[in-house]
Amino acid sequence: MKRLINDPYEVVEEMLDGYVRAHKEHVKLLEHDGRVVVSKQAPIKDKVGVIIGGGSGHEPLFLGYVGEGFADAAVIGNINTSPSPEPCYNAVKAVDSGKGCLYLYGNYAGDVMNFDMGAEMAEADGIRVETVLVTDDVVSSKNIADRRGVAGDLFVFKAAAAKADMGADLDAVKAAAEKANDNTRSMGVALSSATLPATGKPIFEMGEGDMEIGMGIHGEPGVRRGKIESADKVVDQIMEHILGDLPLASGDEVTVLVNSLGATPYIDLHICYRRVDQILEEKGVKVHRAFVGPFATSMDMAGMSITLVKLDNELKELLDYPCNTPYLVIK
Amino acid sequence: MKRLINDPYEVVEEMLDGYVRAHKEHVKLLEHDGRVVVSKQAPIKDKVGVIIGGGSGHEPLFLGYVGEGFADAAVIGNINTSPSPEPCYNAVKAVDSGKGCLYLYGNYAGDVMNFDMGAEMAEADGIRVETVLVTDDVVSSKNIADRRGVAGDLFVFKAAAAKADMGADLDAVKAAAEKANDNTRSMGVALSSATLPATGKPIFEMGEGDMEIGMGIHGEPGVRRGKIESADKVVDQIMEHILGDLPLASGDEVTVLVNSLGATPYIDLHICYRRVDQILEEKGVKVHRAFVGPFATSMDMAGMSITLVKLDNELKELLDYPCNTPYLVIK
Repeated sequence: MKRLINDPYEVVEEMLDGYVRAHKEHVKLLEHDGRVVVSKQAPIKDKVGVIIGGGSGHEPLFLGYVGEGFADAAVIGNINTSPSPEPCYNAVKAVDSGKGCLYLYGNYAGDVMNFDMGAEMAEADGIRVETVLVTDDVVSSKNIADRRGVAGDLFVFKAAAAKADMGADLDAVKAAAEKANDNTRSMGVALSSATLPATGKPIFEMGEGDMEIGMGIHGEPGVRRGKIESADKVVDQIMEHILGDLPLASGDEVTVLVNSLGATPYIDLHICYRRVDQILEEKGVKVHRAFVGPFATSMDMAGMSITLVKLDNELKELLDYPCNTPYLVIK
Repeated sequence: MKRLINDPYEVVEEMLDGYVRAHKEHVKLLEHDGRVVVSKQAPIKDKVGVIIGGGSGHEPLFLGYVGEGFADAAVIGNINTSPSPEPCYNAVKAVDSGKGCLYLYGNYAGDVMNFDMGAEMAEADGIRVETVLVTDDVVSSKNIADRRGVAGDLFVFKAAAAKADMGADLDAVKAAAEKANDNTRSMGVALSSATLPATGKPIFEMGEGDMEIGMGIHGEPGVRRGKIESADKVVDQIMEHILGDLPLASGDEVTVLVNSLGATPYIDLHICYRRVDQILEEKGVKVHRAFVGPFATSMDMAGMSITLVKLDNELKELLDYPCNTPYLVIK
């Protein structure tokens, strides 16, 4: 087990303590609920509250994107486990300023159940809470509404948070999130499993020279397991799935994320990005902005994912909107 | 081999192609020299040119820190290998605006030889080039001038680049770099080896449950190899070495970096940061700013390093100075 931790059952608590110590100019832990990371600026007057969250193990997602111009709070679950309803509710109470709140998270059954219960509790207090589920993982289902949310979370959260920061009402913020989600597609490849702190063991077995294309960030089955292929071949297969689902024409503009799942170095990510850019260039698609690095990980998993967001002027403005958080700063 | 690459002998060229495609708003490759990443803004009138560099495999170091308010150029070597003299010279020619240039890099024999040859070539053209070597790795030698440079590079580069951006002359920029280096100390722990692309094999052997405290970022021997211990115990040992070398008193202020060597997740890094912060808190030392993440890696090596910078008002101003590069944005 190549992890640097203390008590394996205290990893989330100790991470959160370290996190708010390191990034104290941006965030704090909610005093009466140690599983809610709140922006130092929240609640912000006349602003819809934007609340993100999910299981731990995907850092810097989710807590890394709480701060100025981005999310107001992140609700933190255990490793690969949904947060409980109580902190979902407490997050609303902490950030609502009277304009209601939006829950944003990847589409997983546990998260849906618990965030929905949090929303019910808030609504009993007279606070309106809406939800947009991120469903960007193209190969997780044929039916878009059934798909899982992966690294595309970043852009759906960003679009909604920017809209909220501009002063929009809850319906408009929700619509911005839905529009971003409708235009976002992701797919990944895993080369190894993450190590679970509680057991010190991998979540799943993967042969030394093997990879699995399309695997989810918790080790959900992908489309094909086989020997590790060249970066270009892997990117070609992923891009074929993404572009088959999100057709792009010459003149279209996109934002691209080549995301590390944890252990894959920047060298490899940029070699993958190169191929993505070549494919888009051949199609006459313009890359408006590119992100390359660890944005939505699975702890120490080796692998990467590609996310494309098809842009129009509104999405471009929302994704370029300035923010200042511990793990994303846009000037 | 859990790497996503194409031809193992083309990793640096393909990474650089991908890098300038992804971050084209910030940087370009020097047209006649494919191993020099240059800021889109360079040369900047009346500004000392700040040139950083070294071997590949430590990304986002060095190329990630080229851009507005930071370095003007990075010279790129092969994996774990110094750049050649020619690109060191070409970088000077590309960024010098008449005020001379400063070379900044970690203290390794190959880099010293080749950057020195680059400086001689530039001086034959009448361009003054000065050098400051980063020597932050506390356990690499008793004699500070003989020490290696590791993650502390970030702060020495940042201080000098800020000073240059403020309009200072070459002597003052060099003095800022020296002052930052004098006040910066780092030490790391490795839990596994990086995978060399050319061989697909680790650089060194490390038992499954083992770690090596004090190991360098190329696998240089550390102070002790043994079974992996708890994060707190590892941090305590590293902090003892650092604080023994850089004494801090109550009321002092520091910048802290807990740096991933590649594969170590944000959870573990924040658990380590927590202990660093506790130790400093007990001593009455104030953390002015903290950085937690992959800033100076060794590809897919598992492990982390801790860097402390003892601040005065000048260093605080220089390290807080705004910059906008692909891998460091300070507002």
